[in-house]
Amino acid sequence: MPGPLAGVRIVEVSEVISAPLGVMLLAEQGAEVVKVEPPRHGEESRQLSNYRDGMAALFLNNNHGKRSIGVDLKRPEGRALVLELVRRADVFVQNWRPGTAERLGLGEAALRAVNPELVYASVSGFGEDGPYARRRGYDPIFQSLTGYVAAQLNPEVPIPDLVRNAVVDKATAYALAQAITAALFARERGAPGQHVRLNMLDAGLAFFWPDGMLRHSLVGDDVANYAVPGERYALSPTKDGQIVFWASTAEQMRATLRVVSRDDLADSPGQQGRAMIEEANQLARAAAVAEGLSRMTTADAYRRMIDLEVPAAPILGHPEVLVDPQIVHNGAVIEAVHPVYGRYRRVRSPARFSASVADPIRPAPLYGEDTDAILEDLGHDAAERERLRALGVVR
Amino acid sequence: MPGPLAGVRIVEVSEVISAPLGVMLLAEQGAEVVKVEPPRHGEESRQLSNYRDGMAALFLNNNHGKRSIGVDLKRPEGRALVLELVRRADVFVQNWRPGTAERLGLGEAALRAVNPELVYASVSGFGEDGPYARRRGYDPIFQSLTGYVAAQLNPEVPIPDLVRNAVVDKATAYALAQAITAALFARERGAPGQHVRLNMLDAGLAFFWPDGMLRHSLVGDDVANYAVPGERYALSPTKDGQIVFWASTAEQMRATLRVVSRDDLADSPGQQGRAMIEEANQLARAAAVAEGLSRMTTADAYRRMIDLEVPAAPILGHPEVLVDPQIVHNGAVIEAVHPVYGRYRRVRSPARFSASVADPIRPAPLYGEDTDAILEDLGHDAAERERLRALGVVR
Repeated sequence: MPGPLAGVRIVEVSEVISAPLGVMLLAEQGAEVVKVEPPRHGEESRQLSNYRDGMAALFLNNNHGKRSIGVDLKRPEGRALVLELVRRADVFVQNWRPGTAERLGLGEAALRAVNPELVYASVSGFGEDGPYARRRGYDPIFQSLTGYVAAQLNPEVPIPDLVRNAVVDKATAYALAQAITAALFARERGAPGQHVRLNMLDAGLAFFWPDGMLRHSLVGDDVANYAVPGERYALSPTKDGQIVFWASTAEQMRATLRVVSRDDLADSPGQQGRAMIEEANQLARAAAVAEGLSRMTTADAYRRMIDLEVPAAPILGHPEVLVDPQIVHNGAVIEAVHPVYGRYRRVRSPARFSASVADPIRPAPLYGEDTDAILEDLGHDAAERERLRALGVVR
Repeated sequence: MPGPLAGVRIVEVSEVISAPLGVMLLAEQGAEVVKVEPPRHGEESRQLSNYRDGMAALFLNNNHGKRSIGVDLKRPEGRALVLELVRRADVFVQNWRPGTAERLGLGEAALRAVNPELVYASVSGFGEDGPYARRRGYDPIFQSLTGYVAAQLNPEVPIPDLVRNAVVDKATAYALAQAITAALFARERGAPGQHVRLNMLDAGLAFFWPDGMLRHSLVGDDVANYAVPGERYALSPTKDGQIVFWASTAEQMRATLRVVSRDDLADSPGQQGRAMIEEANQLARAAAVAEGLSRMTTADAYRRMIDLEVPAAPILGHPEVLVDPQIVHNGAVIEAVHPVYGRYRRVRSPARFSASVADPIRPAPLYGEDTDAILEDLGHDAAERERLRALGVVR
């Protein structure tokens, strides 16, 4: 049986991470995606980051399973081709700035005229209107406006920093993928094809909020304020590096003392029952654990923590992630060879379906790799394809 | 018209963030959710973080729109109640450790026996088998194993740190919500009800990968390695704080020089065309901008950057996020009053649907708030409800 979204056809005109990644999640579940790329160099991320032989890693990672056609949307014949694609599609996705789709004649009304049941998805930076609507937005800007950067401040690292991956772009992508799927589900049950709108500012805030904004969720001065989990996140120094552990039960907290051979303290009255939450006893425990870890190697500390069932991990460098035994066991990383751009790795889609198992997906396409095949699907013969190419309408 | 998932019934037995947040995203789109909570205090997150009058902020933020019933699953009559709920449901969601569901008689086979078309969703920490499968997992552990912590290292902040929000929990939640929706879509089109499996290790890695693992995506020594975007993320010091800006086009890069009144440099030959990417010219630009910003206030720098169309933002503290003009304009934060736990804020679901607009959702439930109503729905009369309560089967 094919993937859960088999038979769904998507036309995507979008760039970089937010919308391309969202659509890739759907492609990995069996949706057929045509990516329409601008003329000359194709999608913007083909010009960014690490690359080899016509493929950039950022494009690679956000575009597996799609087909690519190069189209000049500013030419009437280019727009007409997109309308032909949309006529046969279920979903259209764009992440232009507000107003661009309409200016190109590819707004919701124009597309719904050729396909009334279309799901039309738009991703903007700040929203379609409002004081910042005309600004260009990028991930670090949204991190600054929605609380991520403020949260990175902490007593041990008194220099603020950003989250050093595009968390807002990716939160938007995941929310987009779910919302498109929900709109398709609703349509199966009789709802019309509809417009699904997201913006990165709201999506960034919504992703940060559930644990990040705990101090602002219940409003008033009478809230009992205990530590926010993220504020307790810490790296613990060892003799040769750092380790991360997270003791959340009383048993795990006592076990941290046994890790550093302080069974005497673990068995003392101050580390039992309600006495454990008294500040002096918490501080005594933390000090003993810190002192003990500072005399152990990370490898020793990790081994003892796992033996004593304290949730813990060393900080894996990126090459180590690839060979972590559980990640290898799970088959989370897939390595393959492309005839043009060579050996590459991709990460497996996180959800596994017991029945709807998608076929192995195509690797990310070279720019315009499928232009001929897509035009042929639309019924354009070789002479017509040659004409469109010569005119610069397609590439 | 109701939300896109109106009519979908979900039974959830899960804790803290990963699965509860995923299910809440579905509730916000109109799914009817019954949350089955363990006896005594209810779900674990009710005991954590900031709280007032029977509500903890962490529970509040991950459980809007659900109904709550307290059930002792270790008692046969408690299990029988869950089976009654599952018989009428479309989806069952649990995030127990591998094997727990089967031990409680609530594994896939047992539930499918009463409801063959059920979508059964499980979320584990590390996967159902493999070397770490028996370990308890928490967000900071997964961050350490999947590359997030390693990526936080950078030249300006040479002390490693974690991402200080539960990014892996939330990535898992979003992937879960999408996967359940995809399984429901497939079922509408004739696929069987199926088992959807996720684990936090794979979900954490999948979320980090698209931009975080750029150096490991194309494999080999012949890859042209330019900077990974997250490595270029930086806070720029001003006279009174920091500012974040992201100049990605040549025009924006020249505009950063105009922000600091260095039009002379912006107009020089070294800041035009291909000369801009020569290292000496890049360094000259960066030095001039840093020097200029160090003599401006953050407010002045921000105003000038916006005027000159350089994407930029100040670092908003969490109270400032709530009053940011665009966030207010978007209505991204909703404030309301609950009769018991009082004033609270919630963040609006990021996707907006043009046709399937969900009704205003119920606030997060008090523990066992809906026990009577749910038992009544199942046909248990007042005397039977009293008996179950007296036996300690429900609360």
